[in-house]
Amino acid sequence: MTVLEQQGEQARVAAKRLATASTRRKNKALLSMAEAIGLRRKEWLAANEVDITKAREDGMSEPMLDRLKLTDARIDGIIRGIREVVELPDPIGCEYDEVIRPNGLKIVKRSVPLGVIAIIYEARPNVTVDAAALTLKSGNAVILRGGKEAIESNKAVIKIMRAAIEAAGLPADCVQLVASTDRESANELMHLNQYVDVLIPRGGRGLIRSVVANAGVPVIRTGEGVCHVYIDEDADLEMGAKILYNAKCQRPSVCNAAECVIVHESVLEAFFKEALPLLDEKKTILRCDERALAVLGDRAVPATEEDWDTEYGNYTLAVKTVDSLEEAIAFIDAHTTGHSEAIVTENDEHAAEFLNRIDAAAVYVNASTRFTDGGEFGLGAEIGISTQKMHARGPMGLKELTSYKYVVVGAGQVRE
Amino acid sequence: MTVLEQQGEQARVAAKRLATASTRRKNKALLSMAEAIGLRRKEWLAANEVDITKAREDGMSEPMLDRLKLTDARIDGIIRGIREVVELPDPIGCEYDEVIRPNGLKIVKRSVPLGVIAIIYEARPNVTVDAAALTLKSGNAVILRGGKEAIESNKAVIKIMRAAIEAAGLPADCVQLVASTDRESANELMHLNQYVDVLIPRGGRGLIRSVVANAGVPVIRTGEGVCHVYIDEDADLEMGAKILYNAKCQRPSVCNAAECVIVHESVLEAFFKEALPLLDEKKTILRCDERALAVLGDRAVPATEEDWDTEYGNYTLAVKTVDSLEEAIAFIDAHTTGHSEAIVTENDEHAAEFLNRIDAAAVYVNASTRFTDGGEFGLGAEIGISTQKMHARGPMGLKELTSYKYVVVGAGQVRE
Repeated sequence: MTVLEQQGEQARVAAKRLATASTRRKNKALLSMAEAIGLRRKEWLAANEVDITKAREDGMSEPMLDRLKLTDARIDGIIRGIREVVELPDPIGCEYDEVIRPNGLKIVKRSVPLGVIAIIYEARPNVTVDAAALTLKSGNAVILRGGKEAIESNKAVIKIMRAAIEAAGLPADCVQLVASTDRESANELMHLNQYVDVLIPRGGRGLIRSVVANAGVPVIRTGEGVCHVYIDEDADLEMGAKILYNAKCQRPSVCNAAECVIVHESVLEAFFKEALPLLDEKKTILRCDERALAVLGDRAVPATEEDWDTEYGNYTLAVKTVDSLEEAIAFIDAHTTGHSEAIVTENDEHAAEFLNRIDAAAVYVNASTRFTDGGEFGLGAEIGISTQKMHARGPMGLKELTSYKYVVVGAGQVRE
Repeated sequence: MTVLEQQGEQARVAAKRLATASTRRKNKALLSMAEAIGLRRKEWLAANEVDITKAREDGMSEPMLDRLKLTDARIDGIIRGIREVVELPDPIGCEYDEVIRPNGLKIVKRSVPLGVIAIIYEARPNVTVDAAALTLKSGNAVILRGGKEAIESNKAVIKIMRAAIEAAGLPADCVQLVASTDRESANELMHLNQYVDVLIPRGGRGLIRSVVANAGVPVIRTGEGVCHVYIDEDADLEMGAKILYNAKCQRPSVCNAAECVIVHESVLEAFFKEALPLLDEKKTILRCDERALAVLGDRAVPATEEDWDTEYGNYTLAVKTVDSLEEAIAFIDAHTTGHSEAIVTENDEHAAEFLNRIDAAAVYVNASTRFTDGGEFGLGAEIGISTQKMHARGPMGLKELTSYKYVVVGAGQVRE
């Protein structure tokens, strides 16, 4: 058995116990984690300092260093996050869809954990705690495989959490870290079919695509977002400008931010009169097709084919002009990543057509794509945003980390 | 582009149209299929005759030949199956879980098709029609890849169905057959990630394991069943005997049939007094551990370790003796395929413990495992029985062939 297979086996055993643990017990373990992280935060900060020093020597960029860095305030936020998970309802053991069959069999679905969840992610130490809290509350064991840049931070906090879970009477192996951060360990984890029920990649496009292409275990694809805002011919243009500004500029690095505005030709000039002053606040770069270029002139640069499939993650916006709703839908179809897509219109028929035909996890009329988020949708915390259709779609909260079993109670029934 | 990529592209295009087709239109296409198969049954029977002749020359066994063979009565049954799918409610376009958020956003989940479903299966021509009907009703395009033994039958009925679908005003490409039945075509289909949303293997253990191990596209694992019946110390033994007889002998070739009975030591002798006369009716072979052997004597043969993981599919039954419910649960944990598991007991605590702790798609108290079936559970027809936890578990009907999208309606909301 390899080290990872042993971890898988331990996770399976822990998952069995966790699957039938009471809500009280799980919440006790979560509160114990929160308290321990608070009390031992110096250990975590010191380990993080080692990661930061190393990363700086290796020439990590400032925005990446910022993601990696822990501070007292950030740790307080992470602890608050655990406490919020305690407050969420337990998704396990709920019974629903009960039927009594003509033969008297009582059949009901009962929610159960998925089992062992693996998460491959990059250099954000907060994910280590968030993921551990959500999987534990939903009765799942978790195997975490973080990026090498955060390895010391992760080791430290995993040690703290495991001790806390054990102190609360649950198996420490509910939460495990893959100690090796080389490519082989990720690859082995992706093929640990005997032990891993679901693998969730969290990170940039490269990571996610690589996991989807290579994994042997079931994967939930998350978080790639080339999102569009379509300004219809019947749009309230002032509203459209505010929605676009919010979708593009409020936090451009996240997956639910917009990358492209599609504008109906008949309102092209009028719309940018409203939108430009807002986009200018962030010096937004506009990469435009020919018709938009003709209107925007020096304020814009020409787009290439590549722009239509780019998740910029910064203050850059692609601009596409169309002659009809039909053309807008076809354009989105060709370039969507299935994340979040919005139309701005006062025309109910256009809105209905868009909502009906666009194939994405979340489709919007007259609101910003930035709302695609577990908290904003009322699910509580989220472990990621699924952009696939199997199992779960859109923000994944606790419920999306569950499965069900059919519980059938009879009085001796046999099949004819 | 390869031939299969072209088929994938055509399926995508067809799926788009099918996704927004009305219930009336889909039902019209289904009725058109049913009628056309009835009218053109001679074509289908003739093609089947070619397959049968070839298979007989190749030395196919009689039970396999029987599965492959079409008759007028079987075609009538297949046509009835399509008409039953017409009667089922349309699973697409249902809205549920509506919330109005504090900011006024209205968020609702709306059921949508999965998109393009691929099915790899063996030599049963009825699956070709069943699968086409269920996927069409649920708004999904389907790419079917049947076994080489049934290729002429499949080509004939696919041609009939495609013409019927087109005559009803939907794209023929909603239903496609992979013309090549070599290993490469299956392998290519398993990696057609750009076009296939879900792949469902239907067939024997070898097929399913190979697909699960090799596929690059998301897979729903179905139908492997090493199912157990546990006779508790507090069982009604007469009921237990009838349940076991039904679970083992009513139709031993199917996945929800039992392969192993686990008997509490304290009722071992008394139980077999009830059960043997029934099992003897089918000359059931009993493969036993030592303690059961001691009781059953010449009536039984010794089991090997391999027996505990074997899906016999015939009148063979493994017999395991245990000292406690705990041991029974541990034994099932070690050998279950996660399909269907039953306890026979009059003890409510034992029943609850079993239902709670056994990890399978369906867990039973005092009923036969043979009920794990879409029809018996009230789902209508089924496309297979999922033994995995992601997406769907147990019998998969129309609803299990759907996903959802979040439909969000606002009045200009932006995120703070």
